[in-house]
Amino acid sequence: MTRPLALSLGEPAGIGPDITIAAWMRRDAVDLPPFYLLGDRDCVARRAQLLGVDIPIADVCVEDAADTFATALPVVATGHPATAEPGRPNATSATAAIASIRRAVDDVGAGRAAAVVTNPIAKSVLYQAGFAHPGHTEFLAELARSDGVVPQPVMMLWCPSLAVVPVTIHVSLRDAIAQLTTELIVSTARIVVQDLRRRLGIAAPRLAVAGLNPHAGEDGALGSEDRNIVAPAVEILRREGIDARGPLPADTMFHAAARKRYDCAICMYHDQALIPIKTIAFDEGVNVTLGLPFIRTSPDHGTAFDIAGTGRADPSSLIAALKLAARMAAAPSP
Amino acid sequence: MTRPLALSLGEPAGIGPDITIAAWMRRDAVDLPPFYLLGDRDCVARRAQLLGVDIPIADVCVEDAADTFATALPVVATGHPATAEPGRPNATSATAAIASIRRAVDDVGAGRAAAVVTNPIAKSVLYQAGFAHPGHTEFLAELARSDGVVPQPVMMLWCPSLAVVPVTIHVSLRDAIAQLTTELIVSTARIVVQDLRRRLGIAAPRLAVAGLNPHAGEDGALGSEDRNIVAPAVEILRREGIDARGPLPADTMFHAAARKRYDCAICMYHDQALIPIKTIAFDEGVNVTLGLPFIRTSPDHGTAFDIAGTGRADPSSLIAALKLAARMAAAPSP
Repeated sequence: MTRPLALSLGEPAGIGPDITIAAWMRRDAVDLPPFYLLGDRDCVARRAQLLGVDIPIADVCVEDAADTFATALPVVATGHPATAEPGRPNATSATAAIASIRRAVDDVGAGRAAAVVTNPIAKSVLYQAGFAHPGHTEFLAELARSDGVVPQPVMMLWCPSLAVVPVTIHVSLRDAIAQLTTELIVSTARIVVQDLRRRLGIAAPRLAVAGLNPHAGEDGALGSEDRNIVAPAVEILRREGIDARGPLPADTMFHAAARKRYDCAICMYHDQALIPIKTIAFDEGVNVTLGLPFIRTSPDHGTAFDIAGTGRADPSSLIAALKLAARMAAAPSP
Repeated sequence: MTRPLALSLGEPAGIGPDITIAAWMRRDAVDLPPFYLLGDRDCVARRAQLLGVDIPIADVCVEDAADTFATALPVVATGHPATAEPGRPNATSATAAIASIRRAVDDVGAGRAAAVVTNPIAKSVLYQAGFAHPGHTEFLAELARSDGVVPQPVMMLWCPSLAVVPVTIHVSLRDAIAQLTTELIVSTARIVVQDLRRRLGIAAPRLAVAGLNPHAGEDGALGSEDRNIVAPAVEILRREGIDARGPLPADTMFHAAARKRYDCAICMYHDQALIPIKTIAFDEGVNVTLGLPFIRTSPDHGTAFDIAGTGRADPSSLIAALKLAARMAAAPSP
């Protein structure tokens, strides 16, 4: 029997409940894999009522979730009720969000779930409750700690025609340049290659490595980093037998014909990776965390407090995240 | 009578002659405005022969160019023959290229031509011949010097669904951050607004100003420049009555729905501007120089020495540049 996907609640006052309900309602139309929400039945029922949708919501145990999915939205209770109104996180929000993530990781670790899919959280709400991790991804990496070692999580943004990985992420552009090292590019690219193989079934992944500077530095005329930091990383990867090319001028890497030449673009900073993918796939991009001992995807947007409970939230990215997680879980072992 | 466009030769060993011939051959199919090439009839005739195309090429004076255009490719002699073979610039290249640009600017200044369209040059070839300007655009600005004042040229990349202007251009990313000032953003944006009005007939141009850092700095958490440099620039522009918004997160500015909300994106560095436009319009982007006393467009690619003379050069960008130049020349005075 197909193991279901574990879907975390995210911030209960955000659009997580809205898009979860909307995705489940379209389960047949978009051929969704079975999933269950880790949360609080009442929270979801209240949101459904607010949205004016009358759907069956079943309080189930994980083992029954997949069978239930066809006829009701399966909710597995975490024991932490969430009482926040849409757009207004309250004292129960952080506890409920964190418990849901922990339980999802437990379920996938124990083999009860095929993968973890996470609804968006609000970092500021978690920080106020004492959450000490920079973000969702780092918390998941911490939960995956094994023998005292925390794995290096790698963020990939994915859509059907493009996958991008930023080597530096949520830092200023100035800090991104300062943090860029050959070692960081190499370690990131190795994780990408490993997970494209084992999770997406790509036997010999092709990497396109972007230059940091315009025109990839134009032989040093426009900055030294491409020659001194990026090019040596590509050289190391190639010596390991990895099909890596670069540093490539970033502006000519992302048009339709160029995208066909590689499986993943390794980018040097946040906007270099996110501008192209959000330009071509704004509503259907998926955030994938590579480098973890389990599969994790999430929609590529935030809590959208301003539209929570209004019916205006678009479930496209969550649907894409659920479908990609199922595809990754089903990938043949290499 | 319609004044013709003055098309410069560019580097004679590059694809300039190829795409000029190809564009003229499609003049009826794509409804091209009349243009004339400033160069050397023999150079064009040799290239046509090499390409295996039998077209009439007419040595004309500027005054007859528009009438000739329907029946022959009009070439106006600059008196500087170019003898280089495709892919192999020689000693005549730089002289011929520079004379052609000078003559185009003369013609538009004297009212004989409606606008200047430039074929790609090879900077390294010009440098060897003693050319002292950083590039094409700066040379044109110098030629437009008036009363001792050289105008500030502004590079805009344009396609039918997006216009972008990088505030800093051909410098390393590190230098781009260092060079970014409120004054530079403001002076650039003012030129953009002025030329969108007078050259493109947009009465009240809407500017979207990108943040430098991821998420436009996230209230200072991801870098101080958006708060200290970009936001004050937007404020100054708004006080002048300009419809400017920002700093905006760059990654969510360029999808199809977002692009409809502004007429031009003001970007902080080269790749922030060029990644989105080359992702969506790789073959048909046009480079437009704003801030000059005349209209200047050019194809958004280089000399492509490797395919010169092979018939593989795509004239789409030159065709788009010619059509945009004509449209700008015909824009109603505000």
